[in-house]
Amino acid sequence: MKYIGIDLGGTNIKGGITDGDRVLIKDEIKTEKEQGAEKVIDNIAEIIRIMLEKSGLSLSDISAIGAGLPGMIDSAGGTVLYSNNLRWVKVDFVRGLQSRLKSHVPVFISNDANVAALGEAAFGAGKEYSDSVLVTLGTGVGGGVIIGGRIFEGNKGAGAELGHMVIKAKGARCTCGRKGCFEAYSSASALIRQTKKAMLRHKNSQLWTVCGGNVDNVSGKTAFDCYFSDETAKNVVDNYISYLAEGLCNLANIFRPQAIILGGGISKQGQMLIDLVKGPFDSGLFGTVLGPQVELRLATLRNDAGFLGACALARQKSGQ
Amino acid sequence: MKYIGIDLGGTNIKGGITDGDRVLIKDEIKTEKEQGAEKVIDNIAEIIRIMLEKSGLSLSDISAIGAGLPGMIDSAGGTVLYSNNLRWVKVDFVRGLQSRLKSHVPVFISNDANVAALGEAAFGAGKEYSDSVLVTLGTGVGGGVIIGGRIFEGNKGAGAELGHMVIKAKGARCTCGRKGCFEAYSSASALIRQTKKAMLRHKNSQLWTVCGGNVDNVSGKTAFDCYFSDETAKNVVDNYISYLAEGLCNLANIFRPQAIILGGGISKQGQMLIDLVKGPFDSGLFGTVLGPQVELRLATLRNDAGFLGACALARQKSGQ
Repeated sequence: MKYIGIDLGGTNIKGGITDGDRVLIKDEIKTEKEQGAEKVIDNIAEIIRIMLEKSGLSLSDISAIGAGLPGMIDSAGGTVLYSNNLRWVKVDFVRGLQSRLKSHVPVFISNDANVAALGEAAFGAGKEYSDSVLVTLGTGVGGGVIIGGRIFEGNKGAGAELGHMVIKAKGARCTCGRKGCFEAYSSASALIRQTKKAMLRHKNSQLWTVCGGNVDNVSGKTAFDCYFSDETAKNVVDNYISYLAEGLCNLANIFRPQAIILGGGISKQGQMLIDLVKGPFDSGLFGTVLGPQVELRLATLRNDAGFLGACALARQKSGQ
Repeated sequence: MKYIGIDLGGTNIKGGITDGDRVLIKDEIKTEKEQGAEKVIDNIAEIIRIMLEKSGLSLSDISAIGAGLPGMIDSAGGTVLYSNNLRWVKVDFVRGLQSRLKSHVPVFISNDANVAALGEAAFGAGKEYSDSVLVTLGTGVGGGVIIGGRIFEGNKGAGAELGHMVIKAKGARCTCGRKGCFEAYSSASALIRQTKKAMLRHKNSQLWTVCGGNVDNVSGKTAFDCYFSDETAKNVVDNYISYLAEGLCNLANIFRPQAIILGGGISKQGQMLIDLVKGPFDSGLFGTVLGPQVELRLATLRNDAGFLGACALARQKSGQ
C-alpha cells in the first residue's frame, strides 16, 4: 500500500510518498499563493505528477492521498472553510484536486498542525504513545491533539486551536482578537518582543551588547544564548518559561495525554527548554504524583512532520 | 436490555435502573463515607439489591452496571486511584462490588463529572449533539467532555480537569495549588467570595442591605438577584461573567464541540446566565462567524444526570 502526503505551506508545498513506514520519495515546489487557490491546487497536482514520475509509479499504485492545509478545514466536506494565511474562503479542495488528477483516488484533508501532530505520533517523538499533544512554538502557537492514535479535530475541524486559550485574562493582545492567549506569551514572536523590550530597558545587559544595540538583531535564540551569563536574558527566559509551563499544564490537565511534544522554532533550544519547563510543568499537574505523569518531548521530524502526517492520515482514513 | 446506574456522592448514593430510554426505578441511600471504602461499597451493593427487589428484577436481568465516582478513576483497571472527597487511595472498586454482588455482571466506572456529562448527552441538554462539553459551576468547576457520543477521559481517566485550566496566570489561588484556575474565578464559591468582598467595600449597596450586613447571608444567587437594581451587584456579576466567558471560550477553541452545557448551582440562574455570557463568549470564538457556532445550553437533568449517565455508560461499554 502506497500513500501520498502533501504539506501545504505559505511558501512551499512539500510532498512525499510512503509505503507504510518507508519514504520512497520526497520533493517540494513553490506554493505561489498570491496566484490564488486554483493555481495552488494546480501546483499540488503538479508535485504529485512529478513524484510519481520520478518514482516510477502511477496513480493507480496509490491507495490514498492525505494533505495538511493551513486554516479551518471541514475534513468531512473536503473543504477549506477559511485560511487566513492563504486568503482562501470556502475552497472545495478535495474535488478540485481529484478533478485535476482525473481520478477518484481518495483524498483526505485536515488542518496542517493536526497533520503534523499525527506525523510525530506515527513516525516521530510520539511513536510510543497512543495519546499525545503537539505544541508548536513558532510565529504563532499551533497544536494538534492525537487521541487513540487519531487526530482530534472538533466540529468541522475547528477545534484544537491550542494557541487561542487565554492563560492571562486581560493580558497581552493576540492576533485572534482576544487578550492573554497562550500564543501571545509563548510564541517565538512573543519571546522576541519580550527580549527586545528587556534589551531596551537594560542597555548595560549582554542582550544589548550581542545585538549591537539594534533590536532588529533579536531572534528567538538571543535570550536563551545569554541565559547563563546575563541576568536580563535570564529574566526574559524565566518569564517566558513560566507562561509556557502554564499553557502546557492546562493542556495536560485537559487532555492528560501520555506526552506533550514541543515543536517549532523555540524547540531548537532542545534539552535546555525541556529542563527549564519541566519543574513548573510537573508541579502544576492536577493530582501531581497520584496521577499518571505526562512526558515532555522534543519533536523530531522538523519539516517532514507535515507530509509524513499526511501519509499517515491517508493510511488511517482509507482504513488500512 | 436493562442497566443499573450508580452516582456516588459524598452524602448520598443515587441509583436507578433503565431499559434503554425509560427509568424503571430510582432510589437513594446514605453514603456513610466516614466509615471507609468497604462500607461505602457495601451500601452500593445494598441499594442495588433494594432496587432489584422493588422492581421485581434479579441481577441476571441486568446487562451491565455503570458508576460515576468522585476522583481520579482508572476506568480500564476498575480502580479509584485517588478521591480527595472520599479520602480513598487505590480502591479496587469493580472487583469489590462484583464480589459483594456474588456476580460477574460487568461493572464500568468513570469520574462522576464525566458520567454526568454523558447523562446530559444521552438523556438531557446534549441529546441533539454528538460532541458536547458539560461545565458544572458549583463548589468547584467540574466538567466532562463527550466526543462522538462517548466520554473522553484522558490517560488513566485523569483528563478533563476543566476547572484546573489557568485563565489568569498569577491570579487567585486555587484549591489545586495553582494560581488563576478557571475554578478560582467561576465556581459558586468564587462568586460568593467576590460578592462578600464587594459588599464589605460598598456598605451603601443593596448587596449590603439584602444580606442585613452579614456576609454569612451571601449565596451564589445574591449578586444575580440584585443585578438590575444595584450597581455593586452588577459589577460583581459582570466581572464573574467575564471570567466565565474566558474559560468557556477556551474550551470551545480547544474542543469546538457543538454545545457547551452549563450545570451546577450557578446554572439555576437559567436564561439570564446564558444571555449574559453569550456575547463575550461568541466574540472570543476562534474564526468567529466563519467557523461552526457553539451552542450554550443549560443542563436539564439536575441530580439525575449522574445515575442516568452511569446507565448510559453501562450500555455503551457493554456494547449494546
